[in-house]
Amino acid sequence: MNAEPLLAPADSNYAAEHPNAFAVVMAGGSGTRLWPLSRRHLPKQFLDFFGDGTMICKTVERLKGLVRDENIIIVTNASGRKLVRKQLPQIPRKNIIVEPVGRNTAPCVALATAFIKKRNPNGVMCVLPADHVIQNVARFQETLKAAIEVAEKTFALVTIGMKPTRPETGYGYIQINGGDPELITSIKVRFGVNAHKVKTFAEKPDIETAQRFLESGDFLWNSGVFVWHVDAISREFERSMPQLFLDMKTIQEAVGTRAEKKTIENVYSWTHSISIDYGVMEKAESVYVLEGDFDWSDAGSWDEIMKFRNHDLEREENRNLFLHDSPNTLVYKPKHKTIAVIGIEDAIIVETADALLVCKRGRSQDVKNIVDALKRKEMEEYI
Amino acid sequence: MNAEPLLAPADSNYAAEHPNAFAVVMAGGSGTRLWPLSRRHLPKQFLDFFGDGTMICKTVERLKGLVRDENIIIVTNASGRKLVRKQLPQIPRKNIIVEPVGRNTAPCVALATAFIKKRNPNGVMCVLPADHVIQNVARFQETLKAAIEVAEKTFALVTIGMKPTRPETGYGYIQINGGDPELITSIKVRFGVNAHKVKTFAEKPDIETAQRFLESGDFLWNSGVFVWHVDAISREFERSMPQLFLDMKTIQEAVGTRAEKKTIENVYSWTHSISIDYGVMEKAESVYVLEGDFDWSDAGSWDEIMKFRNHDLEREENRNLFLHDSPNTLVYKPKHKTIAVIGIEDAIIVETADALLVCKRGRSQDVKNIVDALKRKEMEEYI
Repeated sequence: MNAEPLLAPADSNYAAEHPNAFAVVMAGGSGTRLWPLSRRHLPKQFLDFFGDGTMICKTVERLKGLVRDENIIIVTNASGRKLVRKQLPQIPRKNIIVEPVGRNTAPCVALATAFIKKRNPNGVMCVLPADHVIQNVARFQETLKAAIEVAEKTFALVTIGMKPTRPETGYGYIQINGGDPELITSIKVRFGVNAHKVKTFAEKPDIETAQRFLESGDFLWNSGVFVWHVDAISREFERSMPQLFLDMKTIQEAVGTRAEKKTIENVYSWTHSISIDYGVMEKAESVYVLEGDFDWSDAGSWDEIMKFRNHDLEREENRNLFLHDSPNTLVYKPKHKTIAVIGIEDAIIVETADALLVCKRGRSQDVKNIVDALKRKEMEEYI
Repeated sequence: MNAEPLLAPADSNYAAEHPNAFAVVMAGGSGTRLWPLSRRHLPKQFLDFFGDGTMICKTVERLKGLVRDENIIIVTNASGRKLVRKQLPQIPRKNIIVEPVGRNTAPCVALATAFIKKRNPNGVMCVLPADHVIQNVARFQETLKAAIEVAEKTFALVTIGMKPTRPETGYGYIQINGGDPELITSIKVRFGVNAHKVKTFAEKPDIETAQRFLESGDFLWNSGVFVWHVDAISREFERSMPQLFLDMKTIQEAVGTRAEKKTIENVYSWTHSISIDYGVMEKAESVYVLEGDFDWSDAGSWDEIMKFRNHDLEREENRNLFLHDSPNTLVYKPKHKTIAVIGIEDAIIVETADALLVCKRGRSQDVKNIVDALKRKEMEEYI
């Protein structure tokens, strides 16, 4: 099962045979951790870090053959809407849902659920962040197919977990604990994917706890990818977030009517900002986690981004990049800028038209302090 | 004698009382050691590194009250001529001499000597590089006044030496050796300046030799500032560079005639590229050196330039410069560029519109390797 081609087969019939499969791409984020490239009105999901397409384009591309374009829903904000239209012209206009304000992932999921239920009461939703790095698309698709099957068969919530490779303190963790042996075997045999029942979700740990999680062998990283039947997530909203459940029903009724926009605005004016992990997943009784064996990163810092860049290729392609005696120094630059680095090791250099970041590797989490300083100084044009 | 004001008195009568005093500002250099700011067609003498005027403007400003504007000669090249006209509008057009090609300092001095002799056979010339940093203008002027007096009284060649403060391997050295006690005392009493006869000139030493020079106490750095009577330097040209002496006489005859330009072009087509130090000074019998007690640097690298910048003031003035955990890191940047540095110590960062240099302090001599690489790749637009 480990000899799949690196790219998904374009002729796959899966999408055609699974009209109930939906994808919800969450593209409302406006993080600043990849400043100076990412900006308030150009967040990282709309940026191309590797020269092969923006993150949201690649997120949608990875769904090719798995989910039909008309079943791909993008949730974004007002300024993101234009970028989605431009970068993803193949996505139908009515599939782009605009949140009036950001309220974290729980209301976002509820909103998307309302839309999908209205269209297909048997919909199975794959919820995907628009701004993660995933390599090995074939394995990614197999994992999602397995997740869709588990979601349909068990009506459990399903999440994708990643085998931890280091005591990372920037991710949430998922503790595994058995599960239905027959189901687990079937998923392993048919998709080559390890499935487990979830025991608990753990928030971002301190370094000692992360080390313990890593050594125990029964924790996975929470990748933020979820799969469930619309009825399953509705049931959990009703149980754990009853107000949001009612709001979701109100929105569902309004979808496609003249009241749609106003109804969403009303709900977002009072709904709380809360994550789907905290609001629903941690309280749900039946959650399965499937182990993703593709390369994955939340691309949450320049250190993370730089891990996935092909530096040899970049040096070849950038004849005006000079790295002299500067081992492990990585540069992201506009094509026509000439950059020379002399005697600076283990650094990350990010150049844009109006800003420059020079950062020691391993320190890129401090970029947020720079953005905070810009905010304090009200230097809006640089944020 | 050490309590002079930091700026030269503007009401000095010295210049008016010394119509024989001339200055020759050598502005033909086209170094690349301050890349990416200095470029082939915008060498460092025409750049403003400290926010208070370009180096050539400050070189001429330092002569205020000492040499009359009409006695200030600028020697430059074709592309430098426009810059001189723009940056120094007070200098008469006829005082700007254009070298057809660069041939190092000996032909440059001969050319300037020809012009000055034609105008004033009793001229005393102060030869000054256009691209050095000098602080404490009052002491600088006192030293030049003393040098002019020594040059007039002795008909010796006079040079300004700097007390070495470190075993610098990038400068030439001058060994001192006595001199006329009466003259030395008079110069000390009247100008507060130490004068010595020169024993030998030493080329740029290796580090061990430099250390020995420093410890011996009888070596000074060769600052490249010279003072002499036109007849004294003519005599030395005749003795040590007889062909250049003849060429100089030819040029002198042509100055002010229709043949001037053509004659200079002819001479420069055959004259050798040789420095005044090597061609004349090292062979001259009677050379005095006066100790400059002002701050001086040849500004030959970014490390040198950065020593003279007021970094506290810069941080205050650059509200869009963020140095986070980056001690001893210095930044030269355009006003509107936002730059953030995180965890990078002892670095020099120089940003321009089309290029960026990030260089460890102490490594800025390697900048020339970058420029060499640009030349090899024929990337002329960046040189």
